[in-house]
Amino acid sequence: MGQDQSSVFDLAAQAAKSNGGNNDLLLPPRRFIGAPQKPSAMPYTKYVAYNKQIPFDYPERTWPGKTLQRAPRWASVDLRDGNQALVNPMDPERKLRFWNMLVSMGFKEIEVGFPSASETDYDFIRMLIERELIPEDVTIIVLTQAREHLIRKTYECLRGARRAVVHFYNSVSVLQREVVFRKDKAGIKRLATDAATLCKELEAEVGDTELYYEYSPESFTGTEPEYAAEVCNAVTDVIKPTPEHKIIFNLPATVEMTTPNVFADEMEYMSNHLQDRDCVVLSVHPHNDEGMAVAATELALLAGVDRVEGCLLGNGERTGNVDLVTLGLNLLTQGIDPQIDYSNVPEIRKTVEYCNQIKISERHPYAGNFVFTAFSGSHQDAIKKGLDAREMAAQRAGAELDSFVWLVPYLPIDPKDIGGTYEAIIRVNSQSGKGGMAYLLKTNHNFDLPKRLQVEFDKVVQAYADRTKKEVKDADIWHLFKDEYLPVEDGGVTAAAEVMGDGGDATLKQWGRLKLLKVTSSSGEDGSDTVIKVRILDRGATPDATPVEREISGLGNGPLAAFLNAIRTLGITVSIMDYAEHAMTAGSEALAASYVECQIGEEADTKIIWGVGVDSSITTSSLKAIISAINRSQR
Amino acid sequence: MGQDQSSVFDLAAQAAKSNGGNNDLLLPPRRFIGAPQKPSAMPYTKYVAYNKQIPFDYPERTWPGKTLQRAPRWASVDLRDGNQALVNPMDPERKLRFWNMLVSMGFKEIEVGFPSASETDYDFIRMLIERELIPEDVTIIVLTQAREHLIRKTYECLRGARRAVVHFYNSVSVLQREVVFRKDKAGIKRLATDAATLCKELEAEVGDTELYYEYSPESFTGTEPEYAAEVCNAVTDVIKPTPEHKIIFNLPATVEMTTPNVFADEMEYMSNHLQDRDCVVLSVHPHNDEGMAVAATELALLAGVDRVEGCLLGNGERTGNVDLVTLGLNLLTQGIDPQIDYSNVPEIRKTVEYCNQIKISERHPYAGNFVFTAFSGSHQDAIKKGLDAREMAAQRAGAELDSFVWLVPYLPIDPKDIGGTYEAIIRVNSQSGKGGMAYLLKTNHNFDLPKRLQVEFDKVVQAYADRTKKEVKDADIWHLFKDEYLPVEDGGVTAAAEVMGDGGDATLKQWGRLKLLKVTSSSGEDGSDTVIKVRILDRGATPDATPVEREISGLGNGPLAAFLNAIRTLGITVSIMDYAEHAMTAGSEALAASYVECQIGEEADTKIIWGVGVDSSITTSSLKAIISAINRSQR
Repeated sequence: MGQDQSSVFDLAAQAAKSNGGNNDLLLPPRRFIGAPQKPSAMPYTKYVAYNKQIPFDYPERTWPGKTLQRAPRWASVDLRDGNQALVNPMDPERKLRFWNMLVSMGFKEIEVGFPSASETDYDFIRMLIERELIPEDVTIIVLTQAREHLIRKTYECLRGARRAVVHFYNSVSVLQREVVFRKDKAGIKRLATDAATLCKELEAEVGDTELYYEYSPESFTGTEPEYAAEVCNAVTDVIKPTPEHKIIFNLPATVEMTTPNVFADEMEYMSNHLQDRDCVVLSVHPHNDEGMAVAATELALLAGVDRVEGCLLGNGERTGNVDLVTLGLNLLTQGIDPQIDYSNVPEIRKTVEYCNQIKISERHPYAGNFVFTAFSGSHQDAIKKGLDAREMAAQRAGAELDSFVWLVPYLPIDPKDIGGTYEAIIRVNSQSGKGGMAYLLKTNHNFDLPKRLQVEFDKVVQAYADRTKKEVKDADIWHLFKDEYLPVEDGGVTAAAEVMGDGGDATLKQWGRLKLLKVTSSSGEDGSDTVIKVRILDRGATPDATPVEREISGLGNGPLAAFLNAIRTLGITVSIMDYAEHAMTAGSEALAASYVECQIGEEADTKIIWGVGVDSSITTSSLKAIISAINRSQR
Repeated sequence: MGQDQSSVFDLAAQAAKSNGGNNDLLLPPRRFIGAPQKPSAMPYTKYVAYNKQIPFDYPERTWPGKTLQRAPRWASVDLRDGNQALVNPMDPERKLRFWNMLVSMGFKEIEVGFPSASETDYDFIRMLIERELIPEDVTIIVLTQAREHLIRKTYECLRGARRAVVHFYNSVSVLQREVVFRKDKAGIKRLATDAATLCKELEAEVGDTELYYEYSPESFTGTEPEYAAEVCNAVTDVIKPTPEHKIIFNLPATVEMTTPNVFADEMEYMSNHLQDRDCVVLSVHPHNDEGMAVAATELALLAGVDRVEGCLLGNGERTGNVDLVTLGLNLLTQGIDPQIDYSNVPEIRKTVEYCNQIKISERHPYAGNFVFTAFSGSHQDAIKKGLDAREMAAQRAGAELDSFVWLVPYLPIDPKDIGGTYEAIIRVNSQSGKGGMAYLLKTNHNFDLPKRLQVEFDKVVQAYADRTKKEVKDADIWHLFKDEYLPVEDGGVTAAAEVMGDGGDATLKQWGRLKLLKVTSSSGEDGSDTVIKVRILDRGATPDATPVEREISGLGNGPLAAFLNAIRTLGITVSIMDYAEHAMTAGSEALAASYVECQIGEEADTKIIWGVGVDSSITTSSLKAIISAINRSQR
């Protein structure tokens, strides 16, 4: 090509000179507050905007007004494009394990290798064929460059296969035409049509295999769409697909080079400019260099694309292929069947991580460890209320909860639908508010704290979190709660002894002056003349006092009023501000939890403080709650 | 709200009944080959399409025809929204380290905490203010819910700050209005305007602090855009921003719920429906639940958004906030100055991972370990050619290479521009072709193999890769190359001894029959009567032969022809098919590498085989290459 060889660089260097960032004066004034941002030293003049590399506009676009309607055809390229990008490509055991998972999940098209380039791939494909491991409804795809000796070897590998797609490709991009292949447009197109011609010739040799073709104009995103369409149409002329025997044209975003709206424009253009469209399956193969592969794929589907190639959890060269798990579950959240079984994401992740020997991120959509985790207090509170509201709505509708419509703040998907649990949702750290703590106490320990009690206890939790600077785990909260509100010697709450027993923070374990030993009450038919007798252990108002057992009694219009009068004989004045009680479990053996907000003391010297009591008797649990409040007030 | 409380669930359950996936019969026929996909058991009828939750259409959209022009205003929320989502939130040391990095990178707006909810945050902000750690051109942002006691505490925390943004929020979504706040639209709007009114009142107390406001209609993506605009405009009426003293309206994709084109539509609508637009900074705060946060942000910028809140490398609740590093470097690749210094991504990553105590993925855009890694042979080959072509183009243009326009296949950014190196680019495994091997030999060992020699040696590498099933590291390739082509006893290539010395595969270390000991040649003025005398160690044609030193000589029209004639006296017939030679380093002391393709043997029994020689004499290196070929042919 001689002198012409410089063209792509010269044009680009020219275009880069008119780069954005220099154009501030031509743009509307920036809107910001405070001081302006400063220019960085980043060498932006080295880079050329995509629309200057590949000038293309498609104002006829209709995709922005459309919505997703159904699952595309999925093709997994994990065993090929994913596998080639691993430090240690899969051994046959790993490859077979991945294959089995893909088949069991419902994939009907699986790219299994590049048999002409790798002996391992060749042998694996032969094994699948010879051991008859390919289900009748699954189609294998084999990849080859559009080069004669590679294509021949590819066909050799397919002997005896029931059905297969031969996927041939050559790079058609502006840059690669010049710097890699040093051919003009006609020469590059010829590579594709020569390959197609050879494929047709070799069909005679393969016997009974039902053969299909897939052609990829590789590096499509670096290619003029008009030229890519021209090459594909030239391949159509050779292969002569029919509506019954289609060809796949697969457009790779080999490198993601621009915003996904431009990719969608290109896809809509291609969909409209491929000849014999009813004989063509239009496919995309997006990579994630700019972190937008999922978006590019979804907008491409709006634009008329039929089929998507990708990898589970986004494995693949550099930043990976588009993640099929995210795409599938995004469809699910829109009420669309992904037609792939993603009901056990943890198991999928485990297998993918084992086979690829690469860990995924903790924040990977749908599959990371933190995906259903809410540390924010207001999020936790909203989730708790949302779950409750949904439960009530399902009851009202007479619907089964598991299949009832999912609307929960901050949780776009029901963790149970993809193999998760609710347990990891609420996690509490020093940045959390009271919602998480309240949720954990309710869910794991059956204490449904009244709102103002939540506020009170939250201060205890926050002080602990600020001191330790760590996540406050459920066991910590439970420990703090018991220590603050429940008698430490009391085995009434079984779990208490266990948690206390494990050591924990030895400086906690506080209780207080009074301990309830025995309660006898009698009342007439309306409770107005209730008499209560209580045996109580009084450790005294000071730490070094000698404990004394006392018998106190009182009269009132119910056991609480009577008890408050009895307590007054010890010189303690208590009045009740608020009160709540609930069963902790179902059945007649159930424990009751009581919450009492007490004003303790007289006149100027009063405290408002909560107490909590647990007992199988609803009366005793209330009295214990009052004692809890008194003890706390005297600490 | 009583009976009405069920409405959101009832409407949703109704909408879910008409879900996609049931509508196959109404859609055009699917295009695929092979067998159809089957319905899965995924419970798609539980989920409601976004457009049925939030009916909204905006055909007036203009953003799809626009391109990115310049960097938005960036606001880091790492110290708040990112920090709250950590298992172990940052201690003050980590928080300060992160703060310092953000400042040094050029961030002018940094959200520093939620002081009314966390003592740690409160203390950190006080430290920044009291120790005067906030540069004059940096504005801190403090977050608070729109609740009186929290707002009061927030103002208390700001005493003595030079300038600050008070960022207040309340959730306005359809779902949260009903299940969390149990208020109607007017009631929810009132929460916002009451907060705004209180803020204005408290301004009197703060003294000299230059105060700005940011309001977030939280859970914006679950909200009718019309209502969100109504709430924002009501806040405007209270705050009364001016073009000189703007307000920030920040629209959070608290949960990512739909394709990014819909988010962009919503942003363009908001941009057009916020009153006093010149007094408003329109901001987004995207999360990544569906893996499309980067795309949603970029399309939002096309739609008229001024400002972006996010975190470095995408930290944040659940799947994270949008990744500012990816956004910034995406701009760079479009020739736009990000106005933030991303020139040392490895250092940024190190700090972020240290402070957050979370590792990022190996495939994270721009920052993962594999981002610049090409395992594919054809990619490697193209990269090699692309780097060469760019170098030549820069030379032709008389431009400095480092700042010359970047166009390299498969590498969207110059690794050097963001603190990387070229070393990690090419990695070879059993899936790689010859390009990677050739690149490594050239880059790291100064051997620029002719194409057919690459093909020959590639078989050796592939056999090794298929046997070991591991990545073939540079040291392995170098070991294989020396073992195959170079004399093992020869210290001529310094690195050789080192690599050999480290053990490696002891079964390799092959050499062969002949070893060159001494060369004398003489020729007339045109070389046509070159006489060569060679002393050679001949170990014999069989393994158990006794080594003999021989003196052989020959005559020819140059040293190679003369040498071939000399060799013939040993009964070995060699003719040269191809020949290449290059200096391995600069300067007169340089070693030369010679590559000779030889046909060895006679008539039916010939082999075509390459040899390689290295010597400071270009003559001797050629003779060594011929001996290399002979020895290989006799193994």
